[in-house]
Amino acid sequence: MQKLNQEIGKLIAKKRKEKAFSQETLADLAQIHRTYVSQIERGLKSPTISVLSQITSSLGIKLSELLQEIENTL
Amino acid sequence: MQKLNQEIGKLIAKKRKEKAFSQETLADLAQIHRTYVSQIERGLKSPTISVLSQITSSLGIKLSELLQEIENTL
Repeated sequence: MQKLNQEIGKLIAKKRKEKAFSQETLADLAQIHRTYVSQIERGLKSPTISVLSQITSSLGIKLSELLQEIENTL
Repeated sequence: MQKLNQEIGKLIAKKRKEKAFSQETLADLAQIHRTYVSQIERGLKSPTISVLSQITSSLGIKLSELLQEIENTL
């Protein structure tokens, strides 16, 4: 499952950079702590589905789309 | 986010029953505790994406499919 967390983290970081958001901006929008964003992006933490949903809506994407993109690479 | 957790829980319970799995069987397959399955199904806990992935693969469905089905109802 570590691989899944790493892929999710990498993809979130990519989408965040595409939006030109800092980790702080994303954390503020998703109402989570900046260090938590950093841990998720590095695959160190597995986000809950609630948190992941807050992150994806802050990035303007659908949760299912993010996961579909990951399933295609795993 | 409570609504999301509840919808996920309901859908997992539905898919589990379609497979004729008990909560115990699903817990064993997904390598999590039976009480955790129960809490997730009742929307009391937001599963991590790792746990949700173990649950969906135990049920023979894709994570993205489960979430797509939920997004359509929210």
